Amino acid sequence: MQQTIPIQLSKGPYFAGVDVGGTNTKIGLVDDDGQTLDYRSIPTNEEAGPADLLQRAAGAIKEMAAAVGIRDRELVATGLGTPGPMDIPNGRILDPTNLPHWRHFPVRAELGESLSLPVTFSNDANAAAYGEFWVGSGRDASSMIMLTLGTGVGGGIIVEGHAIEGVNSFGAECGHIIVDSRPDARLCVWGGGRGELEAYASASALVQAQQMLDGGRSSSLRARVDAGETLTTLMLAEEAARGDALALEVIMASATYLGIGITTLVHTIDPGAVILGGAMNFGGDQSEVGRKFLERATSEFQQRAFEVVAKGTRIAFARLGGDAGYIGAAGLARAAYHRAER
Amino acid sequence: MQQTIPIQLSKGPYFAGVDVGGTNTKIGLVDDDGQTLDYRSIPTNEEAGPADLLQRAAGAIKEMAAAVGIRDRELVATGLGTPGPMDIPNGRILDPTNLPHWRHFPVRAELGESLSLPVTFSNDANAAAYGEFWVGSGRDASSMIMLTLGTGVGGGIIVEGHAIEGVNSFGAECGHIIVDSRPDARLCVWGGGRGELEAYASASALVQAQQMLDGGRSSSLRARVDAGETLTTLMLAEEAARGDALALEVIMASATYLGIGITTLVHTIDPGAVILGGAMNFGGDQSEVGRKFLERATSEFQQRAFEVVAKGTRIAFARLGGDAGYIGAAGLARAAYHRAER
Repeated sequence: MQQTIPIQLSKGPYFAGVDVGGTNTKIGLVDDDGQTLDYRSIPTNEEAGPADLLQRAAGAIKEMAAAVGIRDRELVATGLGTPGPMDIPNGRILDPTNLPHWRHFPVRAELGESLSLPVTFSNDANAAAYGEFWVGSGRDASSMIMLTLGTGVGGGIIVEGHAIEGVNSFGAECGHIIVDSRPDARLCVWGGGRGELEAYASASALVQAQQMLDGGRSSSLRARVDAGETLTTLMLAEEAARGDALALEVIMASATYLGIGITTLVHTIDPGAVILGGAMNFGGDQSEVGRKFLERATSEFQQRAFEVVAKGTRIAFARLGGDAGYIGAAGLARAAYHRAER
Repeated sequence: MQQTIPIQLSKGPYFAGVDVGGTNTKIGLVDDDGQTLDYRSIPTNEEAGPADLLQRAAGAIKEMAAAVGIRDRELVATGLGTPGPMDIPNGRILDPTNLPHWRHFPVRAELGESLSLPVTFSNDANAAAYGEFWVGSGRDASSMIMLTLGTGVGGGIIVEGHAIEGVNSFGAECGHIIVDSRPDARLCVWGGGRGELEAYASASALVQAQQMLDGGRSSSLRARVDAGETLTTLMLAEEAARGDALALEVIMASATYLGIGITTLVHTIDPGAVILGGAMNFGGDQSEVGRKFLERATSEFQQRAFEVVAKGTRIAFARLGGDAGYIGAAGLARAAYHRAER
């Protein structure tokens, strides 16, 4: 009878990371250098509640650890990232918009008891920022801001290796800085206050495209929308790449506001690096539209910022994609583990 | 013959703090609890250059230490705060606007050699913030933002006891966050970019008052200006206190923009406390105009911020006045000393 011999791993410690999303939850095992040994994506099934998801996540961690040959004592800590709002000191999720059945639940204790491991609890956007900081696009930085441009704008801030969690667990809510103070400034379609960055540099910008279409502007978007397609940021990127002026105008306006927001954030933190993740990067480095988007945001920032910081700040796309969250959650658990070891 | 016996001090360590200003430099000796033992203000004589000032400062520290009975080894470290721009890692002042004869000078080494003590170098606004954090209005906070409202808006940010210095020594330049992104937004009269907080919530607001006077608005300011007085923020406060509508309107507009800026800063840092210092506080807690100013800024912030942070953030006036800078500089030296001791 043949026996499966696990691949010989280096001695631990190893860390698990759990990144809870509204639809799927990513779970990974990471070594002390931030390399992923194994990972899974499981459905969140948010309507079944947090205990159900966290028990399945704990099961997945144990199965993966066994499969890759990590011995019990070598898996030393787990990181858990969730959407906010949250109460980090008390390990509780409060009332996140995209997890309506998760209310005031002690997520940290639940996962910790299932695994008999210490759990480091963090905001998902801070976890993603820490992932990019540890092994991604910010790996050479000592401090870093990450903006995740998606349906909203998520933010994570790392200062000299520490995530800015905030006294009320509301640190680094970078989508909610104000870029337009006029009384009639835009409201973000996803809620939040008037004139906030999120209303300009996220998928909220689609509202602008729709208004321009409604106003009668000619655009290759129109035929697709008339044919029943939903207006998406991907569609904007595709039509901009084909030369559609309206699509490109909306994307460049979004980049301009992003540059204004980056100026404010950099004048506050002076992090040396600003990393842009999320789906609203219009293809990122791989696409001409993505590169134009980055150039426009960078140029707006450089025109507005102090010369020293304009020169001393790198703005770049993220590298880890959807893996940043669980890697960063594991990384924050690792940082807490090594702090306690000292 | 009578002998002077020094007052019996508690055993050290003691710390010196030097706060360099454009006109005067404040120098103090502070104990391990942040209590000032002695302090002096000496003319900066900026045209004589940095070496001259720093040698006089070192002399003042030695004289004061002898006078209060601190023995040589008990004075263990000195803090030095200067206006920016600066290069903190290399201990250099670069080219500050209000010290035109100070250019790219190694201030940290100069003071350290004169005193044979380690010197902690910091931005003056960060030093003032640390002073308020240590023994002033932020003494019960774990993190804090301080805004110094004067000719410009200075900023200092403390996160869990650490000042945000920035990778390019440009951290916490809170006066340069953007509150108005319109192409025709205000320019700060002291330089800096368009639409920045400094153009709205500093003495720059006097420009607005002047424009309103020029536009023919009736105001009790007019008689004083016509009589040859210079329009100042003190004059604004005085006439507002006497019921002048124009003066109060300018002050309330400044407070509104301040509240907008505070929203952005709190959504970035979530510090739990925002402390307002400087001369543009219109009398502070002691004056009805000052209290109205604070109420307006607080109300604007609370309307715009997330509910949890709106409730969980205290906005208050500073307590230490012009002493915050040298106390905070000494406090940062103390923090570095105790870190090294551990």
